Amino acid sequence: MENQTIKADTAFTQQIIKQVLVSWTSRNTAVTSFFNKYADDAYLNEIAPGRNRAAFLLGHLIATNDALLPLLGLREKLFPELENFSGNPDKSFANLPAMTELKQKWETVNSTLSDHFSRMSAEEWMDRHTAVSEADFELEPQRNKLNVLIGRTNHQSYHLGQLNLLKVKEVVV
Amino acid sequence: MENQTIKADTAFTQQIIKQVLVSWTSRNTAVTSFFNKYADDAYLNEIAPGRNRAAFLLGHLIATNDALLPLLGLREKLFPELENFSGNPDKSFANLPAMTELKQKWETVNSTLSDHFSRMSAEEWMDRHTAVSEADFELEPQRNKLNVLIGRTNHQSYHLGQLNLLKVKEVVV
Repeated sequence: MENQTIKADTAFTQQIIKQVLVSWTSRNTAVTSFFNKYADDAYLNEIAPGRNRAAFLLGHLIATNDALLPLLGLREKLFPELENFSGNPDKSFANLPAMTELKQKWETVNSTLSDHFSRMSAEEWMDRHTAVSEADFELEPQRNKLNVLIGRTNHQSYHLGQLNLLKVKEVVV
Repeated sequence: MENQTIKADTAFTQQIIKQVLVSWTSRNTAVTSFFNKYADDAYLNEIAPGRNRAAFLLGHLIATNDALLPLLGLREKLFPELENFSGNPDKSFANLPAMTELKQKWETVNSTLSDHFSRMSAEEWMDRHTAVSEADFELEPQRNKLNVLIGRTNHQSYHLGQLNLLKVKEVVV
Protein backbone atom coordinates (compact mmCIF):
# COMPACT_ATOMS: atom_id res chain seq x y z
CA MET A 1 0.00 0.00 0.00
CA GLU A 2 2.76 2.40 0.98
CA ASN A 3 4.72 1.39 -2.11
CA GLN A 4 1.72 2.18 -4.27
CA THR A 5 1.45 5.66 -2.79
CA ILE A 6 5.13 6.25 -3.39
CA LYS A 7 4.83 5.08 -6.99
CA ALA A 8 1.85 7.37 -7.47
CA ASP A 9 3.77 10.36 -6.13
CA THR A 10 6.67 9.79 -8.53
CA ALA A 11 4.24 9.49 -11.40
CA PHE A 12 2.39 12.60 -10.18
CA THR A 13 5.53 14.72 -10.24
CA GLN A 14 6.32 13.69 -13.82
CA GLN A 15 2.70 14.21 -14.85
CA ILE A 16 2.41 17.69 -13.34
CA ILE A 17 5.70 18.90 -14.81
CA LYS A 18 4.56 17.64 -18.20
CA GLN A 19 1.27 19.54 -17.81
CA VAL A 20 3.02 22.77 -16.86
CA LEU A 21 5.22 22.40 -19.95
CA VAL A 22 2.21 21.72 -22.20
CA SER A 23 0.48 24.80 -20.80
CA TRP A 24 3.62 26.91 -21.46
CA THR A 25 4.02 25.60 -25.00
CA SER A 26 0.35 26.14 -25.83
CA ARG A 27 0.60 29.83 -24.85
CA ASN A 28 3.71 30.22 -27.04
CA THR A 29 1.85 28.61 -29.91
CA ALA A 30 -1.13 30.92 -29.40
CA VAL A 31 1.19 33.95 -29.62
CA THR A 32 2.76 32.55 -32.81
CA SER A 33 -0.68 32.00 -34.36
CA PHE A 34 -1.73 35.52 -33.47
CA PHE A 35 1.28 37.02 -35.25
CA ASN A 36 0.67 34.89 -38.34
CA LYS A 37 -2.94 36.01 -38.67
CA TYR A 38 -2.52 39.39 -40.38
CA ALA A 39 -0.12 41.18 -42.71
CA ASP A 40 2.98 42.45 -40.87
CA ASP A 41 1.87 46.10 -40.98
CA ALA A 42 -1.22 45.34 -38.92
CA TYR A 43 0.94 44.73 -35.85
CA LEU A 44 2.09 48.34 -35.83
CA ASN A 45 -1.40 49.22 -34.58
CA GLU A 46 -2.00 49.83 -30.90
CA ILE A 47 -3.98 47.07 -29.16
CA ALA A 48 -6.26 49.85 -27.81
CA PRO A 49 -6.09 53.64 -28.22
CA GLY A 50 -2.94 54.99 -26.58
CA ARG A 51 -1.77 51.52 -25.50
CA ASN A 52 1.12 49.30 -26.61
CA ARG A 53 1.55 48.37 -30.24
CA ALA A 54 1.21 44.64 -30.93
CA ALA A 55 4.73 44.53 -32.43
CA PHE A 56 6.12 46.02 -29.21
CA LEU A 57 4.41 43.28 -27.21
CA LEU A 58 6.05 40.65 -29.39
CA GLY A 59 9.44 42.23 -28.62
CA HIS A 60 8.48 42.23 -24.93
CA LEU A 61 7.54 38.54 -25.02
CA ILE A 62 10.81 37.63 -26.82
CA ALA A 63 12.82 39.53 -24.20
CA THR A 64 10.90 37.79 -21.40
CA ASN A 65 11.46 34.33 -22.86
CA ASP A 66 15.10 35.10 -23.63
CA ALA A 67 15.67 36.13 -20.00
CA LEU A 68 14.54 32.62 -18.97
CA LEU A 69 17.75 31.16 -20.45
CA PRO A 70 20.13 32.64 -17.83
CA LEU A 71 17.44 32.65 -15.08
CA LEU A 72 17.01 28.89 -15.44
CA GLY A 73 20.77 28.42 -15.70
CA LEU A 74 20.63 27.18 -19.29
CA ARG A 75 22.85 29.64 -21.21
CA GLU A 76 23.41 33.37 -21.78
CA LYS A 77 20.72 35.41 -23.58
CA LEU A 78 20.41 34.98 -27.32
CA PHE A 79 19.18 38.51 -28.04
CA PRO A 80 20.55 40.96 -25.44
CA GLU A 81 19.80 43.74 -27.97
CA LEU A 82 16.10 43.26 -27.14
CA GLU A 83 16.40 43.37 -23.35
CA ASN A 84 15.20 46.98 -23.23
CA PHE A 85 11.77 45.59 -24.24
CA SER A 86 11.50 44.48 -20.62
CA GLY A 87 10.85 47.34 -18.26
CA ASN A 88 10.53 50.11 -20.86
CA PRO A 89 7.24 51.36 -22.27
CA ASP A 90 6.40 51.14 -25.97
CA LYS A 91 6.35 54.93 -26.16
CA SER A 92 10.13 55.02 -25.55
CA PHE A 93 10.75 53.26 -28.88
CA ALA A 94 10.83 55.49 -31.95
CA ASN A 95 11.30 52.53 -34.27
CA LEU A 96 10.59 48.89 -33.67
CA PRO A 97 12.55 46.07 -35.32
CA ALA A 98 10.91 44.69 -38.48
CA MET A 99 8.23 42.05 -37.92
CA THR A 100 10.23 39.48 -39.93
CA GLU A 101 13.13 39.95 -37.49
CA LEU A 102 10.86 39.76 -34.43
CA LYS A 103 9.08 36.65 -35.69
CA GLN A 104 12.40 34.94 -36.44
CA LYS A 105 13.76 35.73 -32.96
CA TRP A 106 10.52 34.56 -31.35
CA GLU A 107 10.89 31.18 -33.08
CA THR A 108 14.58 30.88 -32.21
CA VAL A 109 14.21 31.67 -28.52
CA ASN A 110 11.30 29.26 -28.17
CA SER A 111 12.97 26.37 -29.96
CA THR A 112 16.10 26.93 -27.85
CA LEU A 113 14.01 26.84 -24.67
CA SER A 114 12.07 23.73 -25.78
CA ASP A 115 15.30 21.97 -26.59
CA HIS A 116 16.67 22.61 -23.08
CA PHE A 117 13.33 21.85 -21.39
CA SER A 118 13.08 18.45 -23.08
CA ARG A 119 16.28 17.40 -21.31
CA MET A 120 15.48 18.71 -17.79
CA SER A 121 14.72 16.27 -14.96
CA ALA A 122 12.17 16.80 -12.18
CA GLU A 123 15.09 17.49 -9.83
CA GLU A 124 16.31 20.27 -12.08
CA TRP A 125 12.86 21.85 -12.37
CA MET A 126 12.48 21.81 -8.59
CA ASP A 127 15.93 23.31 -8.03
CA ARG A 128 16.51 27.01 -7.36
CA HIS A 129 16.64 29.51 -10.20
CA THR A 130 19.79 31.61 -10.59
CA ALA A 131 18.37 34.77 -8.99
CA VAL A 132 17.95 33.15 -5.55
CA SER A 133 20.79 32.21 -3.21
CA GLU A 134 21.16 28.75 -1.69
CA ALA A 135 20.39 30.17 1.75
CA ASP A 136 17.21 31.93 0.60
CA PHE A 137 16.09 28.86 -1.34
CA GLU A 138 16.36 26.81 1.84
CA LEU A 139 13.72 29.08 3.39
CA GLU A 140 11.66 29.63 0.21
CA PRO A 141 11.57 26.34 -1.73
CA GLN A 142 8.92 27.76 -4.06
CA ARG A 143 11.62 29.85 -5.76
CA ASN A 144 12.37 26.97 -8.12
CA LYS A 145 12.60 26.83 -11.90
CA LEU A 146 9.16 25.31 -12.40
CA ASN A 147 7.54 28.17 -10.53
CA VAL A 148 9.26 30.65 -12.82
CA LEU A 149 7.72 28.87 -15.79
CA ILE A 150 4.23 28.88 -14.21
CA GLY A 151 4.59 32.64 -13.69
CA ARG A 152 5.81 33.26 -17.24
CA THR A 153 2.94 31.20 -18.68
CA ASN A 154 0.49 33.47 -16.88
CA HIS A 155 2.43 36.50 -18.13
CA GLN A 156 1.99 35.26 -21.71
CA SER A 157 -1.74 34.72 -21.13
CA TYR A 158 -1.99 38.26 -19.76
CA HIS A 159 -0.56 39.78 -22.95
CA LEU A 160 -2.48 37.37 -25.19
CA GLY A 161 -5.69 38.74 -23.72
CA GLN A 162 -4.53 42.20 -24.75
CA LEU A 163 -3.30 41.18 -28.20
CA ASN A 164 -6.66 39.67 -29.02
CA LEU A 165 -8.21 43.13 -28.69
CA LEU A 166 -6.26 44.38 -31.72
CA LYS A 167 -8.58 45.73 -34.36
CA VAL A 168 -7.42 45.27 -37.91
CA LYS A 169 -9.12 47.22 -40.67
CA GLU A 170 -10.52 45.07 -43.44
CA VAL A 171 -8.50 45.45 -46.59
CA VAL A 172 -10.80 46.51 -49.43
CA VAL A 173 -9.41 45.21 -52.72
CA MET B 1 19.77 6.58 -2.57
CA GLU B 2 16.56 5.24 -4.07
CA ASN B 3 14.74 6.11 -0.87
CA GLN B 4 15.99 9.66 -1.07
CA THR B 5 14.69 10.02 -4.62
CA ILE B 6 11.31 8.67 -3.57
CA LYS B 7 11.15 11.08 -0.65
CA ALA B 8 12.06 13.95 -2.96
CA ASP B 9 9.30 13.00 -5.40
CA THR B 10 6.64 12.98 -2.68
CA ALA B 11 7.85 16.36 -1.48
CA PHE B 12 7.92 17.63 -5.08
CA THR B 13 4.29 16.71 -5.68
CA GLN B 14 3.18 18.56 -2.55
CA GLN B 15 5.38 21.53 -3.41
CA ILE B 16 4.12 21.85 -7.00
CA ILE B 17 0.46 21.56 -6.02
CA LYS B 18 1.04 24.26 -3.42
CA GLN B 19 2.62 26.48 -6.06
CA VAL B 20 -0.23 26.00 -8.51
CA LEU B 21 -2.66 26.96 -5.73
CA VAL B 22 -0.63 30.05 -4.80
CA SER B 23 -0.59 31.08 -8.45
CA TRP B 24 -4.37 30.64 -8.69
CA THR B 25 -5.03 32.58 -5.49
CA SER B 26 -2.74 35.41 -6.53
CA ARG B 27 -4.70 35.91 -9.77
CA ASN B 28 -7.98 35.96 -7.83
CA THR B 29 -6.51 38.55 -5.50
CA ALA B 30 -5.34 40.66 -8.43
CA VAL B 31 -8.89 40.64 -9.84
CA THR B 32 -10.27 41.65 -6.44
CA SER B 33 -7.78 44.52 -6.16
CA PHE B 34 -8.65 45.72 -9.63
CA PHE B 35 -12.36 45.93 -8.77
CA ASN B 36 -11.62 47.81 -5.55
CA LYS B 37 -9.56 50.47 -7.28
CA TYR B 38 -12.28 52.73 -8.65
CA ALA B 39 -15.84 53.81 -7.90
CA ASP B 40 -18.39 51.19 -8.99
CA ASP B 41 -19.59 53.22 -11.99
CA ALA B 42 -16.14 53.11 -13.58
CA TYR B 43 -16.56 49.40 -14.28
CA LEU B 44 -19.44 50.07 -16.64
CA ASN B 45 -16.86 51.39 -19.11
CA GLU B 46 -15.60 49.20 -21.92
CA ILE B 47 -12.02 47.99 -21.50
CA ALA B 48 -11.39 49.26 -25.06
CA PRO B 49 -13.76 50.86 -27.60
CA GLY B 50 -16.45 48.37 -28.62
CA ARG B 51 -15.09 45.65 -26.31
CA ASN B 52 -16.45 44.06 -23.11
CA ARG B 53 -17.37 46.20 -20.13
CA ALA B 54 -15.22 45.54 -17.04
CA ALA B 55 -18.35 44.65 -15.00
CA PHE B 56 -19.29 42.03 -17.60
CA LEU B 57 -15.82 40.48 -17.28
CA LEU B 58 -16.30 40.23 -13.50
CA GLY B 59 -19.56 38.36 -14.12
CA HIS B 60 -17.70 36.13 -16.60
CA LEU B 61 -14.95 35.36 -14.07
CA ILE B 62 -17.52 34.58 -11.34
CA ALA B 63 -19.34 32.19 -13.70
CA THR B 64 -16.04 30.53 -14.64
CA ASN B 65 -15.00 30.04 -11.01
CA ASP B 66 -18.48 28.88 -10.03
CA ALA B 67 -18.39 26.23 -12.76
CA LEU B 68 -15.26 24.80 -11.10
CA LEU B 69 -17.38 23.58 -8.17
CA PRO B 70 -19.24 20.84 -10.11
CA LEU B 71 -16.33 20.29 -12.56
CA LEU B 72 -14.02 19.42 -9.67
CA GLY B 73 -16.77 17.36 -8.02
CA LEU B 74 -17.06 19.64 -5.00
CA ARG B 75 -20.70 20.74 -5.04
CA GLU B 76 -23.37 22.26 -7.30
CA LYS B 77 -22.98 25.84 -8.58
CA LEU B 78 -23.64 28.65 -6.14
CA PHE B 79 -24.86 31.15 -8.73
CA PRO B 80 -26.49 29.36 -11.68
CA GLU B 81 -28.23 32.67 -12.48
CA LEU B 82 -24.84 33.93 -13.72
CA GLU B 83 -23.99 30.98 -15.95
CA ASN B 84 -25.03 32.86 -19.10
CA PHE B 85 -21.92 35.02 -18.51
CA SER B 86 -19.99 32.07 -19.90
CA GLY B 87 -20.35 31.72 -23.64
CA ASN B 88 -22.44 34.84 -24.26
CA PRO B 89 -21.01 38.18 -25.37
CA ASP B 90 -21.34 41.33 -23.26
CA LYS B 91 -23.48 42.88 -26.00
CA SER B 92 -26.26 40.37 -25.27
CA PHE B 93 -26.79 41.87 -21.80
CA ALA B 94 -29.00 44.95 -21.63
CA ASN B 95 -28.43 45.32 -17.91
CA LEU B 96 -25.68 43.94 -15.76
CA PRO B 97 -26.13 43.05 -12.07
CA ALA B 98 -25.04 45.81 -9.67
CA MET B 99 -21.34 45.91 -8.85
CA THR B 100 -22.07 45.36 -5.14
CA GLU B 101 -23.83 42.12 -6.04
CA LEU B 102 -21.05 41.00 -8.39
CA LYS B 103 -18.32 41.80 -5.87
CA GLN B 104 -20.16 39.89 -3.16
CA LYS B 105 -20.61 36.83 -5.38
CA TRP B 106 -16.95 36.99 -6.43
CA GLU B 107 -15.89 36.85 -2.77
CA THR B 108 -18.32 34.04 -1.96
CA VAL B 109 -17.36 31.78 -4.85
CA ASN B 110 -13.65 32.24 -4.15
CA SER B 111 -13.90 31.61 -0.42
CA THR B 112 -15.99 28.49 -1.13
CA LEU B 113 -13.36 27.23 -3.58
CA SER B 114 -10.47 28.00 -1.19
CA ASP B 115 -12.24 26.17 1.58
CA HIS B 116 -12.59 23.03 -0.57
CA PHE B 117 -9.08 23.33 -2.02
CA SER B 118 -7.51 23.48 1.45
CA ARG B 119 -8.87 20.00 2.15
CA MET B 120 -7.92 18.29 -1.15
CA SER B 121 -5.12 15.70 -1.24
CA ALA B 122 -2.59 15.23 -4.04
CA GLU B 123 -4.52 12.11 -5.08
CA GLU B 124 -7.70 14.14 -5.46
CA TRP B 125 -5.97 16.85 -7.51
CA MET B 126 -4.52 14.21 -9.83
CA ASP B 127 -7.85 12.44 -10.23
CA ARG B 128 -10.15 12.98 -13.21
CA HIS B 129 -12.50 15.94 -13.36
CA THR B 130 -16.21 15.26 -13.72
CA ALA B 131 -16.39 16.01 -17.47
CA VAL B 132 -14.14 13.08 -18.42
CA SER B 133 -15.10 9.41 -18.25
CA GLU B 134 -12.99 6.81 -16.47
CA ALA B 135 -12.16 5.18 -19.81
CA ASP B 136 -11.01 8.45 -21.41
CA PHE B 137 -9.03 9.39 -18.30
CA GLU B 138 -7.15 6.13 -18.57
CA LEU B 139 -5.89 7.27 -21.98
CA GLU B 140 -5.56 10.97 -21.14
CA PRO B 141 -4.24 11.27 -17.57
CA GLN B 142 -3.67 15.00 -18.04
CA ARG B 143 -7.44 15.53 -17.76
CA ASN B 144 -7.14 15.84 -14.00
CA LYS B 145 -8.39 18.48 -11.58
CA LEU B 146 -5.04 20.20 -11.18
CA ASN B 147 -4.80 20.76 -14.92
CA VAL B 148 -8.21 22.42 -14.89
CA LEU B 149 -6.93 24.84 -12.27
CA ILE B 150 -3.76 25.60 -14.27
CA GLY B 151 -5.97 26.39 -17.26
CA ARG B 152 -8.32 28.60 -15.27
CA THR B 153 -5.40 30.50 -13.75
CA ASN B 154 -4.22 31.35 -17.25
CA HIS B 155 -7.78 32.31 -18.18
CA GLN B 156 -7.85 34.78 -15.28
CA SER B 157 -4.48 36.22 -16.36
CA TYR B 158 -5.84 36.63 -19.88
CA HIS B 159 -8.74 38.78 -18.69
CA LEU B 160 -6.61 40.63 -16.14
CA GLY B 161 -4.43 41.81 -19.02
CA GLN B 162 -7.56 43.21 -20.64
CA LEU B 163 -9.00 44.74 -17.46
CA ASN B 164 -5.80 46.66 -16.86
CA LEU B 165 -6.42 48.53 -20.11
CA LEU B 166 -9.55 50.18 -18.67
CA LYS B 167 -9.30 53.94 -18.83
CA VAL B 168 -11.01 55.76 -16.02
CA LYS B 169 -11.58 59.48 -16.38
CA GLU B 170 -10.10 61.52 -13.57
CA VAL B 171 -12.80 63.00 -11.38
CA VAL B 172 -12.33 66.75 -11.23
CA VAL B 173 -13.60 68.04 -7.91
